[in-house]
Amino acid sequence: MTVRTLLIGLLLASAAADAAADDAVAAARAYREAHGAKVLADFARFLAIPNVASDLPNIERNAAYIRDALIARGARMELWRQDGVPPLVYGELDAPGVELTVGVYMHYDGQPVVPAQWTHDPWSATLASSAIESGGTAIPFPAPGDAIDPEWRIYGRGSGDDKAPLAAILGALDALDAAGLRRTVNLKFFFEGEEEAGSAHLERYMTVHRDRLDVDLWLICDGPVHQSRRPQLVFGVRGYTGLEITIYGARRYLHSGHYGNWAPNPALLLASLLASMKDTAGKVTIDRFFDDTVMPGPAERAALDALPAVEDALRLELEIAPGATEGRGASLAERLLLPSLNIRGMVSAAVGDGARNVIPTEAVASLDIRLVKGNDPDRMLEAVEDHVRAEGFHVVRETPDAETRRTHPRIAKIVRGSGYPAARTPLDAPAAAIAVDAARRVAGDALILMPSLGGSLPLYLFNDLLGSPVVIVPIANHDDNQHAPDENLRLANLWYGIDLMAALFTSGPSRPDPPPGD
Amino acid sequence: MTVRTLLIGLLLASAAADAAADDAVAAARAYREAHGAKVLADFARFLAIPNVASDLPNIERNAAYIRDALIARGARMELWRQDGVPPLVYGELDAPGVELTVGVYMHYDGQPVVPAQWTHDPWSATLASSAIESGGTAIPFPAPGDAIDPEWRIYGRGSGDDKAPLAAILGALDALDAAGLRRTVNLKFFFEGEEEAGSAHLERYMTVHRDRLDVDLWLICDGPVHQSRRPQLVFGVRGYTGLEITIYGARRYLHSGHYGNWAPNPALLLASLLASMKDTAGKVTIDRFFDDTVMPGPAERAALDALPAVEDALRLELEIAPGATEGRGASLAERLLLPSLNIRGMVSAAVGDGARNVIPTEAVASLDIRLVKGNDPDRMLEAVEDHVRAEGFHVVRETPDAETRRTHPRIAKIVRGSGYPAARTPLDAPAAAIAVDAARRVAGDALILMPSLGGSLPLYLFNDLLGSPVVIVPIANHDDNQHAPDENLRLANLWYGIDLMAALFTSGPSRPDPPPGD
Repeated sequence: MTVRTLLIGLLLASAAADAAADDAVAAARAYREAHGAKVLADFARFLAIPNVASDLPNIERNAAYIRDALIARGARMELWRQDGVPPLVYGELDAPGVELTVGVYMHYDGQPVVPAQWTHDPWSATLASSAIESGGTAIPFPAPGDAIDPEWRIYGRGSGDDKAPLAAILGALDALDAAGLRRTVNLKFFFEGEEEAGSAHLERYMTVHRDRLDVDLWLICDGPVHQSRRPQLVFGVRGYTGLEITIYGARRYLHSGHYGNWAPNPALLLASLLASMKDTAGKVTIDRFFDDTVMPGPAERAALDALPAVEDALRLELEIAPGATEGRGASLAERLLLPSLNIRGMVSAAVGDGARNVIPTEAVASLDIRLVKGNDPDRMLEAVEDHVRAEGFHVVRETPDAETRRTHPRIAKIVRGSGYPAARTPLDAPAAAIAVDAARRVAGDALILMPSLGGSLPLYLFNDLLGSPVVIVPIANHDDNQHAPDENLRLANLWYGIDLMAALFTSGPSRPDPPPGD
Repeated sequence: MTVRTLLIGLLLASAAADAAADDAVAAARAYREAHGAKVLADFARFLAIPNVASDLPNIERNAAYIRDALIARGARMELWRQDGVPPLVYGELDAPGVELTVGVYMHYDGQPVVPAQWTHDPWSATLASSAIESGGTAIPFPAPGDAIDPEWRIYGRGSGDDKAPLAAILGALDALDAAGLRRTVNLKFFFEGEEEAGSAHLERYMTVHRDRLDVDLWLICDGPVHQSRRPQLVFGVRGYTGLEITIYGARRYLHSGHYGNWAPNPALLLASLLASMKDTAGKVTIDRFFDDTVMPGPAERAALDALPAVEDALRLELEIAPGATEGRGASLAERLLLPSLNIRGMVSAAVGDGARNVIPTEAVASLDIRLVKGNDPDRMLEAVEDHVRAEGFHVVRETPDAETRRTHPRIAKIVRGSGYPAARTPLDAPAAAIAVDAARRVAGDALILMPSLGGSLPLYLFNDLLGSPVVIVPIANHDDNQHAPDENLRLANLWYGIDLMAALFTSGPSRPDPPPGD
């Protein structure tokens, strides 16, 4: 079944699907209310296994834990391997008579820890009455039947980033099983063990096993919900590239009195070059910079309009005056749908106490470029380089020799950084409806649809290499201290995760034969 | 006699004066050829007295040496004092019946030394067969009557910078005395003992003794001759001021993905601001920047046209391409007659390995401004600040608080540096003729008249506080290693100094009653 015909079925079956999903969400809630203590105890066992990617023995224990937990729920599991790196935990869990397949990505490794910076042992899950920063204190884990406050938090490395999705998946599968509800999607699990170490082998795992990884939609289970605490689905990430530009003056520092007004000043040349790239309203003025950009469609525009406004609060916190932002009044989320050119650093000689009366020998700017759907890293770098040439610079790759410097009045050394493209699924893409439908059943009107994150992740691999759309499905609270000491997961977010997974697993056409015209 | 009536007399008497000066130069040459060994021996004794300004006991020995040497030549000498600092060696040597008075400035202190970096003891004069860098070796000092090679060099701290003028003055006075020639100018000696330590007390010495320091012309005996080895007179120096500009973004570093394209980037704002101050041809575009500039007159223009061209050699050495220099083809000397705006440093966040994907919180530029005749440091800084305001920035003096940052979209903190004005004597100023006349008699057509140095010295004190014009009279070779190890004076330059002083002391109207109309 193609996604498009599937979607037609989904729409036709919406009333029945609604009912099934609502059943599933109700079943998830009932299950976690009855068995919350067990869910937490299981999760605590998982969190107690150290999960730094370089700690291969413990990484193996994590992988085995996941494999065994999913085998126990009926999945066929495999550990894919490359020498000396964490295994990729792969699994399949079919639903009888179902053609729709959803891939679930998460990563089971976590950031390294400095235990002394943690309030409690990062490798021994601790339950707290609320956020420790806000006065929460350690409490005992509940016994079966005890009431559980959703504001409690479970502490431990990986609790929010990114072991929570497994707890949600296991809870959802158990809830559906307990209620006798069948899944309407086949599942493929694709769990990475070195995301925090840079995902260096992810592409190879995908390439080698590409034929096993054909799904209708990838759910990327990572990251936090919206800072307003409202659940969100995120439909893309920005890509990334960058470059460093060095402009040259005389070959040695010159006395600014003896040579000032005559010898070229590379800091001035660089300032002029940078100023020519972007106007002070924040619009990039480089030819072709926006040519390939896929602009937001009506569905994205509607989602942008529905977003909670965060700009006033951000300006207050960041101490930015009204009118100072780039894009002049455009929302942050809207600006993230355009490619950006950012001066991340600029240095020529020295300032402050280190400043001397010299004409600098060179001036360097480090630029990063965030890409959106449609932008190719190399094409973007070409556009920037062509702009530098159009400004009169002779572009070189290596530090110029004396002959080059004596020949070309303006020289720019450009060193290109690596990069990768953006990934973005249209909000009205047929497959996206699987996720939107499920999340809305759980969250109702509180659900936020975010067209793109501002940050960059290599999700293009799922789009381009595996050929399927992606939707990011965050579960963790926004204040989960990810990558930091005292990482935690708020229980309300874990409960949301279980409900959401139950809804996702029962999304799509619930019956093989939807009544025509219904 | 005023300088103006004096000059008329000088012009009327030129033929007679020529003859007198030529006599004096001939007498100087004859004297040093006969008594070169004595001149060198005396100079070696002077060089052997350590002269770092902070070494007060030895500084006193230097001052006493100078005082005694000039008393022996008939001068009235005084050591002016301020507590704990080197004395100012003051003296008067009148010429009977003469109204014209020339002040002679030199400094008898030298830069500190690191003896291990010297080939020979810096405090024990060494004679060498040529420059040590070019293979010169130590040779014995000559005995009376021995032939002396003018390419020999005498090594020791202060040999070039700035004890040489005293040796020249003493040699010239002895030569005139030996030949029975009378001076045509009164002399006032004004010898400083802490120039290399920053001249912190010079202004006070001048203020306290202003009524003793009324002269028709100050000869500033310091610095090297032209790098072509040709003798030069220099008619001015540039003044100096500067400022540091800090532009602000958000109060903390922001993730360039999450906020890039929305949060303001201070590096971009700074780049735009700097680019608005000066075009890429090197012309400052700030309103009023050139308003007060005294442009070169016909005499300066003629001198500029007569200068040896150094630009091609400089471009080769400094690896600057044709067309890269600011001012597009204007000579270096010509550019030094305009006020300059130089970016001496520019920093925002980091580049290279230190670069991170952030939007910087601030961007800083350190600027120095070289002033020419007519420019006032404060007025120049006002012009720059008004430009910054015209570019839309709210200018503050202190780091802005949260309220200020939330109110003003663009904020520039400007911290002004100290400064002082330029000094420049018109080449056709009546008093300048005293020096030009004398130097030309010694050097002939080889004499270079340099309207201004590019560097800055507080000679405005002589102009503005003492109210007299200045001409800089360099003696030392350009490759004298001043401020560095192995400082030296080439004997040809010492001989030139003796000849020049003899000519200067016999410059001006040589007779009370020049024949009318001659």
